[in-house]
Amino acid sequence: MRGTVLYGPRDVRFEERETPKIVKSTDAIIRVSAACVCGSDLWPYRGIQPITQPTPMGHEYCGIVEEVGSEVHSIRPGQFVIGSFFASDGTCPHCHAGYQSSCQHREFVSTAQAPLLRVPLADGTLVATPEVPSDDLIPSLLTLSDVMGTGWFAAVAANVKPGATAVVVGDGAVGLLGVLSAKQMGAERIIAMSRHKTRQDLALEFGATEIVTERGDEGVTRIKQLTDGVGADAVLECVGTQESMMQAICSVRPGGSVGYVGVPHGVSLDGPQLFYAHVHLHGGPAPVRRFLPQLIDLVWDRKINPGKVFDLTLSLDQVAEGYRAMDERRAIKALLRP
Amino acid sequence: MRGTVLYGPRDVRFEERETPKIVKSTDAIIRVSAACVCGSDLWPYRGIQPITQPTPMGHEYCGIVEEVGSEVHSIRPGQFVIGSFFASDGTCPHCHAGYQSSCQHREFVSTAQAPLLRVPLADGTLVATPEVPSDDLIPSLLTLSDVMGTGWFAAVAANVKPGATAVVVGDGAVGLLGVLSAKQMGAERIIAMSRHKTRQDLALEFGATEIVTERGDEGVTRIKQLTDGVGADAVLECVGTQESMMQAICSVRPGGSVGYVGVPHGVSLDGPQLFYAHVHLHGGPAPVRRFLPQLIDLVWDRKINPGKVFDLTLSLDQVAEGYRAMDERRAIKALLRP
Repeated sequence: MRGTVLYGPRDVRFEERETPKIVKSTDAIIRVSAACVCGSDLWPYRGIQPITQPTPMGHEYCGIVEEVGSEVHSIRPGQFVIGSFFASDGTCPHCHAGYQSSCQHREFVSTAQAPLLRVPLADGTLVATPEVPSDDLIPSLLTLSDVMGTGWFAAVAANVKPGATAVVVGDGAVGLLGVLSAKQMGAERIIAMSRHKTRQDLALEFGATEIVTERGDEGVTRIKQLTDGVGADAVLECVGTQESMMQAICSVRPGGSVGYVGVPHGVSLDGPQLFYAHVHLHGGPAPVRRFLPQLIDLVWDRKINPGKVFDLTLSLDQVAEGYRAMDERRAIKALLRP
Repeated sequence: MRGTVLYGPRDVRFEERETPKIVKSTDAIIRVSAACVCGSDLWPYRGIQPITQPTPMGHEYCGIVEEVGSEVHSIRPGQFVIGSFFASDGTCPHCHAGYQSSCQHREFVSTAQAPLLRVPLADGTLVATPEVPSDDLIPSLLTLSDVMGTGWFAAVAANVKPGATAVVVGDGAVGLLGVLSAKQMGAERIIAMSRHKTRQDLALEFGATEIVTERGDEGVTRIKQLTDGVGADAVLECVGTQESMMQAICSVRPGGSVGYVGVPHGVSLDGPQLFYAHVHLHGGPAPVRRFLPQLIDLVWDRKINPGKVFDLTLSLDQVAEGYRAMDERRAIKALLRP
């Protein structure tokens, strides 16, 4: 089998790797129907997050169950399944609390940009669709594995309620799906912060009511102007830099909420500033598994179409071009088909 | 009139000051029945928060309305009233959202360790009791002006629910009243972190079910042991140092909440650590005004007795001894009577 391996900055190879097989009795093997490149894959791709050895890549996946271990009971071969980027046991206190991405036995799924994938803790991780989906649903179902679940968590963590004014910081695929999520949760105003025409257009299609092109302090000033000096009820932080985090915290009204899902790089928060902002802060790696049943229903019933974030489709062996296109912001998100 | 003035580190004087009078038509003048020394007064007293000029002191108060400005309609002379340390207009969007301590026109009340006090924005700030209280209720009513309202906000911000396991970091008066608040909100286990016998005793009397004497990493380890490795549902941070904040964040379970009310001094939070802790973080200067009606009822009906935090009663002209006793931790909190 050939799969995706990152060797160093901007050096992605699709090369021969060992074919995955059942290692533990709780594993499943999936024949991948679609995978993709994640914004967070770009951190090591750009060398910002160093890697020390050739590293298999890919943590977003959906596909047909090929084989299951002897202790797997909730799914069976032939089913179409989606799982989170963090495998979880589904039984520990953190899973029961809905924080499966902090599962006491979590394992990062990291080899999904390949035709076959071993998923640990299959019972706690994978959710089957009602039947094998038609091909046009696959992009949207794939997003539920991470990017849509993460945008949804940003909106949940930012406590978006019907009638709310929400701001989305970040116009990557997560931010755009944060817009879609805020819309689903009933936000009345959704202000997307973006300076890229194609992303602005998709934000508007997903439900954004206003676009703000300014950033940093100027972006905050603009949000304050748009909210009569009050600030937003909910801010979704979908980038992970110091600038984006401060932009989020300074844009929220006292008592409002920032939901942050951008993996933080070099972020440090000043205690007194947080204190006097009166902000609610919540975030982290999205507990995607919590949202899978609800989001599968929404996609299945064609109420949402998050697969629109894929504006580039490639075959798996073209994966390096997918990374390049996203790195150069030529593509929002690259879909990979075996 | 004589009042309290801080001249510099450990230099508190009770000296002649101008008698307050109505300045704006929205002011009220209060004849102070009781005032007290706040833990936060110790920051400038110890020189940790520098002052540049002689500074009148005191922001916790209750008393009889002496006079009101022409635009004050909700209270009248002769009533017994309690107000927050932040005066608030009661009409701005932040007040309507319940964050009166971020009121767009807030003013810090800073001259309360004196027999007479001018309170700005009286309509939005002061709440009258049903009638003039008997003398034994006055200490508890006084706490509602800040220390009890702040402990209560710590528990609200930490999202304490019936059946929860709560941890309280800090055994000052705010922490002890955080214990009482968590108990009122139905916490099943309340773990007070304290190494002082008198404070441990009061914590137990207020509803603590366990005492932990360890601090820092050892304190966190102990909390994890007591919660089967899971962490607490709710942590009330009532100190404001880097150590106490990290102790709080590391003691909470993924998805749990830290409510922080200790005024931060030198606190800086690491983005990735917050991210992977999956913590809810909320806090700031307590919106005491939001809680006054409910807390007045609880004191009036003698369901809570937060006044027990006062273990030293002095006359106003002995105020310097109140600061000394609290600085040296000989007293939990000093009550001052004119």
